[in-house]
Amino acid sequence: MIFVPRLFLLFSLFSIVFSHESVDSHLLPRPLILEYPDYKETHFKELKEEIRLQCTSWRFAVEANNLNPWKTIPQECADYVKDYMTGREYVIDLQRVSEEAMVYAKTVELTGDGKDVWIFDIDETLLSNLPYYAEHGYGLEIFDHGEFDKWVEKGMSPAIQPSLKLYDEVLRLGYQVFLMTGRNERHWGTTVENLINAGFRDWDKLILRGSDDHGKLATIYKSEKRSEMEKEGYRILGNSGDQWSDLLGTSMSSRSFKLPNPMYYIP
Amino acid sequence: MIFVPRLFLLFSLFSIVFSHESVDSHLLPRPLILEYPDYKETHFKELKEEIRLQCTSWRFAVEANNLNPWKTIPQECADYVKDYMTGREYVIDLQRVSEEAMVYAKTVELTGDGKDVWIFDIDETLLSNLPYYAEHGYGLEIFDHGEFDKWVEKGMSPAIQPSLKLYDEVLRLGYQVFLMTGRNERHWGTTVENLINAGFRDWDKLILRGSDDHGKLATIYKSEKRSEMEKEGYRILGNSGDQWSDLLGTSMSSRSFKLPNPMYYIP
Repeated sequence: MIFVPRLFLLFSLFSIVFSHESVDSHLLPRPLILEYPDYKETHFKELKEEIRLQCTSWRFAVEANNLNPWKTIPQECADYVKDYMTGREYVIDLQRVSEEAMVYAKTVELTGDGKDVWIFDIDETLLSNLPYYAEHGYGLEIFDHGEFDKWVEKGMSPAIQPSLKLYDEVLRLGYQVFLMTGRNERHWGTTVENLINAGFRDWDKLILRGSDDHGKLATIYKSEKRSEMEKEGYRILGNSGDQWSDLLGTSMSSRSFKLPNPMYYIP
Repeated sequence: MIFVPRLFLLFSLFSIVFSHESVDSHLLPRPLILEYPDYKETHFKELKEEIRLQCTSWRFAVEANNLNPWKTIPQECADYVKDYMTGREYVIDLQRVSEEAMVYAKTVELTGDGKDVWIFDIDETLLSNLPYYAEHGYGLEIFDHGEFDKWVEKGMSPAIQPSLKLYDEVLRLGYQVFLMTGRNERHWGTTVENLINAGFRDWDKLILRGSDDHGKLATIYKSEKRSEMEKEGYRILGNSGDQWSDLLGTSMSSRSFKLPNPMYYIP
């Protein structure tokens, strides 16, 4: 019976971690544990399955923008998020959003006056910081600006390949490509170099956070920039980003594409 | 070797169904099949796992609003969607979004002038049509207006319990509760009766599609109604819906909550 207290402890942890998400413990499959003689194995299988269920549900809430701002991923989901980010699921999700965006990009009839715009965010949209996050628990550690800036200055973020494919297609179709990032403008040089080395080329605008934009929420900063674009006569037809703050707010794009990112949240 | 052609056929089906989502078949775990002596079992496990992966990815794309309008669920995902809708995953997801909405609802400081509004959609948000969809392949069949209308007229849609909990809390906190549905106003009587029998009470407005709203996309119809509310001085603070067309458009709510629904898409 040594596993009962541990089971209870782990289920209690669940109730704490997911407490404001109301996972009623009476819904957990406790009876099953008593039914089987191979007690340990069944128990751990059940627990593993329960973690997969809860963390998948949490990830859905992230992607559907249902969560209040969060600072780290749930501790119980550490392995889950790692497996997701390093396995095929992340790749498949990235491919799907890229392909869906391409289907849409082709259906839009462009006016060809140089005012048809597609906006791309940079981090976790065009460039991947997975090597950095692999060293920092895939979102389990609280975000460290200083450490992340050091990583950015290395200029070694690889391209997200499905996004590069979309990027090239969008260029080929004749869209103006605007890059808009939360990166500070002091990273301008490294960012340009990194983008080019990763295969991105011929963008029409690259917008970084200037001194006026400090302290602004990303949603506000990005909405303001989109509003300026509209005032200049641009039509924002497509927008790709891994954060809802890339996509929501004012002067929203005709269609937005949300890339997966269960590692961090930018309000 | 009888399973090789079937394997190939199934993988080919994948490529067709998910074709515009670019699931490169070279990414599928073919080598594994040759590694094991217990060929059949391994193969079917792999295939089952592959279907789970692809359908989960598809469901994410649905919930993140990345897909072009779709009329039916992918055929390969029939069992997956059924299992999701009838199992614990759907319940857990519903509970999470309800709890997150409650956390938010409590943080908003209401002015108490009777202008603080929470909007609820009805179908698959307050009331469940799962009994109907269970009889129609959980989204595998093309939507049949006539058949669905007959179901609606029975007035037997049960409450989505986590939404009822949110509904009661939102009322208790002092929000004005506005119900806004794509249902035609000829269903007014049955809808009121169904809502009351399911436990919903004391709403402040119930908006159904009138004759002026026919043929309008849901996004347009709902945006227009929200815009009218704003003109009347209402502040839309919360909005709960299972379709992105309940939530996006103009006069959007301060916060929106997307309930899960992998069975159908309303543009």
